[in-house]
Amino acid sequence: MSLIDLSKHVALGIDIGGTNTKFGVVNHRGEVLEKGNLRTDEYEKVEDFIDALYEKVHPLIEKFGKEKNFDGIGVGAPNGNYYKGTIEQAPNLPWKGVVPFGEMMTAKFGMPCTVTNDANAAAFGEMLFGAARGMKDFIMITLGTGVGSGIVASGKLIYGHDGFAGELGHTIVKPGGRKHWSTGSEGSLEAYASATGIAITAKKMRAEFAESMLNQYPEEEINSKTVHECALKGDPIAIEVFRYTGQKLGEALANFVMFSSPEAILLFGGVIKAGDFILKPAKLHMERNLLPIFRNKVKLVFSELDEADAAILGASALVWEK
Amino acid sequence: MSLIDLSKHVALGIDIGGTNTKFGVVNHRGEVLEKGNLRTDEYEKVEDFIDALYEKVHPLIEKFGKEKNFDGIGVGAPNGNYYKGTIEQAPNLPWKGVVPFGEMMTAKFGMPCTVTNDANAAAFGEMLFGAARGMKDFIMITLGTGVGSGIVASGKLIYGHDGFAGELGHTIVKPGGRKHWSTGSEGSLEAYASATGIAITAKKMRAEFAESMLNQYPEEEINSKTVHECALKGDPIAIEVFRYTGQKLGEALANFVMFSSPEAILLFGGVIKAGDFILKPAKLHMERNLLPIFRNKVKLVFSELDEADAAILGASALVWEK
Repeated sequence: MSLIDLSKHVALGIDIGGTNTKFGVVNHRGEVLEKGNLRTDEYEKVEDFIDALYEKVHPLIEKFGKEKNFDGIGVGAPNGNYYKGTIEQAPNLPWKGVVPFGEMMTAKFGMPCTVTNDANAAAFGEMLFGAARGMKDFIMITLGTGVGSGIVASGKLIYGHDGFAGELGHTIVKPGGRKHWSTGSEGSLEAYASATGIAITAKKMRAEFAESMLNQYPEEEINSKTVHECALKGDPIAIEVFRYTGQKLGEALANFVMFSSPEAILLFGGVIKAGDFILKPAKLHMERNLLPIFRNKVKLVFSELDEADAAILGASALVWEK
Repeated sequence: MSLIDLSKHVALGIDIGGTNTKFGVVNHRGEVLEKGNLRTDEYEKVEDFIDALYEKVHPLIEKFGKEKNFDGIGVGAPNGNYYKGTIEQAPNLPWKGVVPFGEMMTAKFGMPCTVTNDANAAAFGEMLFGAARGMKDFIMITLGTGVGSGIVASGKLIYGHDGFAGELGHTIVKPGGRKHWSTGSEGSLEAYASATGIAITAKKMRAEFAESMLNQYPEEEINSKTVHECALKGDPIAIEVFRYTGQKLGEALANFVMFSSPEAILLFGGVIKAGDFILKPAKLHMERNLLPIFRNKVKLVFSELDEADAAILGASALVWEK
């Protein structure tokens, strides 16, 4: 009989974002033994990015490889595809088209590399080590510059037939509504509930109400942070910006609940700093749009992990799952 | 080594509808060896329904039990709950509240009974024996008096944490839109794309256009069948009724695709007799609302099985799966 000593096994988890890439050496208990980062947007060619990553990471592999088994690399990236190991048409990354990222990493590092969507990786991290520990059915929504999502059903990430499932930010909450700055679609959740969408709402509303405190800021400083500051000072227009955002979010969440009936919806990302200003209307409009059998059952909770940490943990865990 | 002779095993599949209940003795190959039915709406008390069902079914169990193993009973019912074996608050059934249907069946029949949602049962039947054979990711939508759905991801039915996942007919496609006659929600898919919804649309549109052929029918004869007749004769208003229905359906389908990225969407039920009058606008508006990575990938197909047959086959197969 041979027992595997899990404490001797580590993996590298990588979270690729539009601006920064973060990585960590992680063990089975979800402990990040060492961390690092590099800029993503400095590398126009993916080959150069991988070379730069190698320079930073190789010493760690050498170091930990001496006494532990380095089992592989897990990557969370925008439009990362679990089945194919590719990063495809990611609008926020400098590398265009279909990038065979996993293959390129394996060729460079000489070890297996698993790729998935960044939000999926974060959801997986939350399930193993964060606020969704022990849950088998939940949805994670990241409210950042964009709106990302990861869906877990019966303890498994939903990938869909092609690996691209879980683009909830692009579901339409208001047909014929606000045009998305990048996709061109009309009325998507991301157009309203992302930081970018909130800034648009705030600029529209302050233009209508001269008395709003929001008018004390120059155009380029109108963002979810300054709206939050004004809301905290009691500005009714700033509060209305978040209420409207929360309503659109809540309406979308109701539809998601009637799809997969999750135990909880986990919210992540910079926008959730607005707290109850968004959460209360979101909860209200979610409940209002639900069939009675779903009402007052779904927990709306904030993530317990830092977003990048969750993705690093989830990405590294994928190495062992696969 | 002992091999199980599958040909010797049969199960009873039951599809409970608001008006009729159909049942069949099914083998592992999906062959319905014997069929029967009874009225659902004649039994105000669920005990009386089960007694009447027993009278009809018991002779079959005796007959097949002589030479085959009768392994159990699978039930598909509106608001059937897979985890609890209950039928809960089903608006179209005479039995109110939470009915412990599975337990009651087991007590009466002396064999295990699995309960699930009727649409889930039909989806499972389609996966094993119908148009979704070999697919691991698909969504089944029933467009009948109401709009039902069953969702399969990675080869498994999505039940959610409480067994109620997949109420896609109640997702909101037009916030603040048409009020649902039974749930009271505003702008749900069912309010537009069910037979009931189509009749409402047709009555509204014919009132606006005196020249429509639809005005040749008395109010109570306006339904998806008569609208179809007028559309076939070239009535532009009847065609517009289906186009509008198809648009709402297509917008909803786009959101579903961005959730679970299915290989196909299977359409079922009486409304699909309208064929391309609905399917073409549905396809158009689905594609239009999808992110590019999802476009021109998802098959929109009609079911190959009769709806009740699919549910009977799926329900009986659940006996062996569980």
